[in-house]
Amino acid sequence: MLPGVGVFGTGSTARVLVPLLQAEGFEVHALWGRSEEEACGLAKELSIPFHTSRSDDVLLHQDVDLVCIYIPPSMTRQIAVKALGIGKNVVCEKAATAIDSFKMVTAARYYPQLLSMMGNTLRFLPAFVAMRQLLVEGYVGDIQVCDVRVYGPSLLDQSYGWTSEELMGGGGLHIVGSTIIDLLSYLTGHRAHRVHGLLRTFVEQNNLIRGIRRVTSDDFCFFQMLMGGTGPSGVCCTVTLNFNMPGSFVHEVMVVGSAGRLVVRGTELYGQRNESKCEELLLADISGVGPEVKEMPLPHLQGLSSMVKALRQSFQAHEERRLWSQGPVASAPTFEDGLYVQTVVEAVKRSSISGEWVCVEIMSQEPDPNHNLCEALQRNKN
Amino acid sequence: MLPGVGVFGTGSTARVLVPLLQAEGFEVHALWGRSEEEACGLAKELSIPFHTSRSDDVLLHQDVDLVCIYIPPSMTRQIAVKALGIGKNVVCEKAATAIDSFKMVTAARYYPQLLSMMGNTLRFLPAFVAMRQLLVEGYVGDIQVCDVRVYGPSLLDQSYGWTSEELMGGGGLHIVGSTIIDLLSYLTGHRAHRVHGLLRTFVEQNNLIRGIRRVTSDDFCFFQMLMGGTGPSGVCCTVTLNFNMPGSFVHEVMVVGSAGRLVVRGTELYGQRNESKCEELLLADISGVGPEVKEMPLPHLQGLSSMVKALRQSFQAHEERRLWSQGPVASAPTFEDGLYVQTVVEAVKRSSISGEWVCVEIMSQEPDPNHNLCEALQRNKN
Repeated sequence: MLPGVGVFGTGSTARVLVPLLQAEGFEVHALWGRSEEEACGLAKELSIPFHTSRSDDVLLHQDVDLVCIYIPPSMTRQIAVKALGIGKNVVCEKAATAIDSFKMVTAARYYPQLLSMMGNTLRFLPAFVAMRQLLVEGYVGDIQVCDVRVYGPSLLDQSYGWTSEELMGGGGLHIVGSTIIDLLSYLTGHRAHRVHGLLRTFVEQNNLIRGIRRVTSDDFCFFQMLMGGTGPSGVCCTVTLNFNMPGSFVHEVMVVGSAGRLVVRGTELYGQRNESKCEELLLADISGVGPEVKEMPLPHLQGLSSMVKALRQSFQAHEERRLWSQGPVASAPTFEDGLYVQTVVEAVKRSSISGEWVCVEIMSQEPDPNHNLCEALQRNKN
Repeated sequence: MLPGVGVFGTGSTARVLVPLLQAEGFEVHALWGRSEEEACGLAKELSIPFHTSRSDDVLLHQDVDLVCIYIPPSMTRQIAVKALGIGKNVVCEKAATAIDSFKMVTAARYYPQLLSMMGNTLRFLPAFVAMRQLLVEGYVGDIQVCDVRVYGPSLLDQSYGWTSEELMGGGGLHIVGSTIIDLLSYLTGHRAHRVHGLLRTFVEQNNLIRGIRRVTSDDFCFFQMLMGGTGPSGVCCTVTLNFNMPGSFVHEVMVVGSAGRLVVRGTELYGQRNESKCEELLLADISGVGPEVKEMPLPHLQGLSSMVKALRQSFQAHEERRLWSQGPVASAPTFEDGLYVQTVVEAVKRSSISGEWVCVEIMSQEPDPNHNLCEALQRNKN
């Protein structure tokens, strides 16, 4: 039996997600928005019976067993941790900081029987599922290089908000780069141990953001990740993100190995082995999802659709609405993956400031908030 | 009147260059090869009346007024400097080191009336000539990002030789990266002041290079250049070179600016302005050059053809065979450009070793070969 769903957020993802959930047979019982008006408007539009701007009203709603959190990164941790504490299953977007991600990991570890899943939908895109399968089967031989590029129009919201603020989780690296970091660890089976990056904000002001306000989030980001691997050199990943290209959308993930390469362009998978003269189409776009939604690129949109299908499969075999099976969502990113991704994002940011390679060190305990104070006291004592 | 030509080299470039020269009306009087057999074989094939394996025989040949040097990088400096000293015009490939490049600059400065031109043919490719013109006219607005990728099969020779040796000028960075470094300074009108890079040799041995021999030159290289520019952030250039991709050839140079972007794919120029919905073809491939020569990618081949045409125009207006006009070859890379390129190449290599950003500092005087000795003596004295 499918669980009742509560959705946090009124942005473009929530707007696309709700109809997808409904189409798979989920009942969306409650919607949370930052303001009553936003919540009311979207709830009416999407036929959701209950709406609110108070988070507890959704979390404590008796018909809500699965909470989907698609809100600004700085608010994610609070809702996700509370939802788990109340005993609800959680699918959520990334947090704003590694400390927040770590708190989410702690909560997820404490409630292992609950579903806790990061919302990176690229892992569910059929082209990437097929790519991973071929990589495991040795299509490209030893993986040498992953080369990713995402080009598109500005990620800034219409009005000044978190997307303009680097510290609030805005910017190409945090919004899009994080999905790529997660995807590459999924595809290669390895994690980055060292990263180097360069971030730029080429457009600091526009028609809507002006006066004393400036955009601090990156619109161009370029980073490299060195990962483990079977070859002596490991795997080198290079990622270029450019969001100063209105009117275009390029989403290309290439994996080059000793015996051939695979590349996903948009939602289609192509491959070429070294001995072959030309590239072959390995997986065409066969999805039934309609034309591109203005604010959501096709790979993310189709991945979201596949993720919702996987969620249905995970829940439907069980009589009890809160029970789920691991199988259909086994490849989904966990909160641990979320912490890894956030750690890499912050390492790239530090590298961009220092200009140096930065080691990726996953937090294993929460930093003591009094640490600096203690140090200061220590110094005074001496 | 066109000058008589002497050609150094029997490799793929020389083999393509001679027929192009002959087609434009140049007489190729002499050919130098490393061995008598190589020289003899190619001279017969290309109907060159004189061949030799002694360089002076070409340099001192009375009918030779223009010397074209297409030999391994470690030998270039010696021939180029000597040719200028004898009063011959020179077109030559890159040297192996910045010190060699500096010696070539010194010679070129000493004989300003002689033609001294580096052989980077990409500057002559019509697509890049048109791209530069559009950049100057402001098609993309302020230039923000240049993004280049070149993918292709291995650059290694059939047998073990300089292409396998990093110190001999082998590797993707030195062979292909240098043409891109030169091209980007031509296109943007700026030079790199800081670079960061990563080089890898994924294939250290193959069927032909084995036993105790290992390839030391890079087959994967990835570098960034920070350049001056009109915007506050300057221009960020990212270059990805991958020569572990047999059966493919990708040569793509994209320039993104505040108002639009231009991209040359292969030999064709495309553009899109920010307000436009789609990309437009700005310059189709209209060249008469035939199908791709196996060992020379089309952009280089067509560039070479255009360079030879420019050389003809430069020389043909003059009665005296050694006189030439600046106009038609005004955009050609000078030996000073060659020194800049070599300096960037070495900076990228240093960055790959240290992992840090490296400043590009052009040599302004020859390093004292006794410098280390002097320092040691100095230390002993104290």
